[in-house]
Amino acid sequence: MSPMKYSAMLESIRQKKPLVHHITNYVTVNDCANITLCIGASPVMSHAWEEVEEMVRHAGALVLNIGTLDSYQEKSMLLAGRAANDLGTPIIVDPVGAGATRYRTDFISRLITDLQISVIKGNAGEIGTLAGADARVRGVDSGDVKGDLPRIAHDFALETGITIVVSGATDIVSDGSQLIAVENGHPMMGRISGTGCMATSIIASFAAVQRDMAEASAASLAAFGIAGERAAATTSGPGSFKTAVFDHLSLLTPAELARDAKIRML
Amino acid sequence: MSPMKYSAMLESIRQKKPLVHHITNYVTVNDCANITLCIGASPVMSHAWEEVEEMVRHAGALVLNIGTLDSYQEKSMLLAGRAANDLGTPIIVDPVGAGATRYRTDFISRLITDLQISVIKGNAGEIGTLAGADARVRGVDSGDVKGDLPRIAHDFALETGITIVVSGATDIVSDGSQLIAVENGHPMMGRISGTGCMATSIIASFAAVQRDMAEASAASLAAFGIAGERAAATTSGPGSFKTAVFDHLSLLTPAELARDAKIRML
Amino acid sequence: MSPMKYSAMLESIRQKKPLVHHITNYVTVNDCANITLCIGASPVMSHAWEEVEEMVRHAGALVLNIGTLDSYQEKSMLLAGRAANDLGTPIIVDPVGAGATRYRTDFISRLITDLQISVIKGNAGEIGTLAGADARVRGVDSGDVKGDLPRIAHDFALETGITIVVSGATDIVSDGSQLIAVENGHPMMGRISGTGCMATSIIASFAAVQRDMAEASAASLAAFGIAGERAAATTSGPGSFKTAVFDHLSLLTPAELARDAKIRML
Repeated sequence: MSPMKYSAMLESIRQKKPLVHHITNYVTVNDCANITLCIGASPVMSHAWEEVEEMVRHAGALVLNIGTLDSYQEKSMLLAGRAANDLGTPIIVDPVGAGATRYRTDFISRLITDLQISVIKGNAGEIGTLAGADARVRGVDSGDVKGDLPRIAHDFALETGITIVVSGATDIVSDGSQLIAVENGHPMMGRISGTGCMATSIIASFAAVQRDMAEASAASLAAFGIAGERAAATTSGPGSFKTAVFDHLSLLTPAELARDAKIRML
Repeated sequence: MSPMKYSAMLESIRQKKPLVHHITNYVTVNDCANITLCIGASPVMSHAWEEVEEMVRHAGALVLNIGTLDSYQEKSMLLAGRAANDLGTPIIVDPVGAGATRYRTDFISRLITDLQISVIKGNAGEIGTLAGADARVRGVDSGDVKGDLPRIAHDFALETGITIVVSGATDIVSDGSQLIAVENGHPMMGRISGTGCMATSIIASFAAVQRDMAEASAASLAAFGIAGERAAATTSGPGSFKTAVFDHLSLLTPAELARDAKIRML
Repeated sequence: MSPMKYSAMLESIRQKKPLVHHITNYVTVNDCANITLCIGASPVMSHAWEEVEEMVRHAGALVLNIGTLDSYQEKSMLLAGRAANDLGTPIIVDPVGAGATRYRTDFISRLITDLQISVIKGNAGEIGTLAGADARVRGVDSGDVKGDLPRIAHDFALETGITIVVSGATDIVSDGSQLIAVENGHPMMGRISGTGCMATSIIASFAAVQRDMAEASAASLAAFGIAGERAAATTSGPGSFKTAVFDHLSLLTPAELARDAKIRML
């Protein structure tokens, strides 16, 4: 993937301002809304059974994030997801806490069975759990997984036909054929709540303008990681760091993304 | 309306600290709580059917914001709204996303029929939809409307007896007799999530101390707009801009509001 | 309690990173997540009946905060609370708005009857209401109480066997034998939404590593208060103040906590 392609995607988001429909948790939902605006897309949050199918018709992508899943939201996600599938709208899933409880793990399995999902983005523990690897997840932390993470991601993508993104110090992206590493980012991103959820919102924004989900995901993680690097360079604590991440993502130009992205094929 | 009147209203809020009861969305609810504190009032959020009627008794104003409406909240809003009407407590409605789905549009129509509402504050697309104009709303964006916006607002106010506020580069306020333009504000306010919701919370704070809803609304929008102007002058991205809006609204004195408000009769 | 003990507790949190399971309100939940990370623990929010009992098994402490209580959450709290009791996991209760409505007051009484609670942390009005003193609560403000607050806290703790924390300009902590005053903090902390909820999350983080709940509570309030003092020294409005509180709590070292804590026995 040439750096020109990343800059073209970011330009396209800022020109088209795609609507990103979120059904997500109430912990980081405001961060998701703001980061979607910062990348140049437009967020909408809606979970009511009465309207999710109508709302998703306006959207360029649908985020399903299970951070505070309950039985009401289960049905919201299935209704919106089926409508998105009918429309060919990409669905980006964030399996927050999969592995921490059977309830979360089982629901993600159901989403994979019932819907055509474009991207699943989780941390090592979440993806490891879903892929059937030897993983340990305690809460919504990164968790641990034994084994070769790029291989786990690649094989899980190949098996499911879903682009798999594993966030971490080095982010891994695979669609079963491509295997990509993204090395932007900063350890401070793990010290604030919501960076995982925000990454998912950004991926959805790119997925709304780019059909190749592995490329869209890699470009997203690079953009967010660059914002994190720049924010860390000018702040000294998590409160001001978080504020600066929004600033820097918003100010990031397509040319800077192309120049500073650290994306390589594995 | 003389500038002295705006400063008197702000002084009154800061002295009486009216309670503003919110039934609102989970996306921007924290911003609404903090902006209510910044203007000098006191926020409370409560949606449980068991308590909304009791909670609203303590309140100087009630905010009904449909940003993440669902069937539970519908009933919460009707229960609290009827109690507010019995008490003569002003109700301020934010029709977030009206026009984007039939569900939202219809529920606002029901609120207008079933309750006596003091103020509806929306963007051009939302108000245009509700007023029956030729409007287009995609999500919770500003949308578009064809036609003469001040006239649409004026006629809709006259028809319903509700003070209508249309937020935008120039805000429009009409109660069917007065037609007011407020020209404070900054484009950055459209680049963060929640400014519309925050404006509604501020209007409710003013409505708790001022019977003339058009004057309360105009003063609110001027105060918020001035805070936005000052925040934009000292920041360069949406994260730090948002932080600064809270600072500047909190620091705004009644005398400064009177001096810097750009409110004019149309 | 020697200052060495406070520093040891903070060191222990940062080493063990205990999981703090929250069932809390949607207004300040993001602040609770971030402040938990800043003190060094790990937050998880989960309310689904299907999983709360499983989730609490991973946790070092459980927060039950009734800021936006409804009937769904009532059952979530009882399910998680019973599971926590079976495991011996401390439960920290924040009775937000007790006294403002009968619904809130009655539910806290039920929690006290049905569960073994380790700590209740409220403001003067909330604790006064629960203790049966002559208290007045309007919303989620601090409210008023007539009478000798330290005595009210002490007697309520003695009667219930629960450690009682009353937040205020001087915080009061009592377990029925010890009576402790904490004099850290700054008036700005009362001018932003969520400081009460955040204090509760920090107490839960300390309670996960320290069996003496009065000592855990006192150390928590000192740590948070010091962060508030430092934040106030470098900022001039509530937006930037709040950002700085997160920074300063995160940067607070165990040695600084021991040095700057203003904790004294009454």
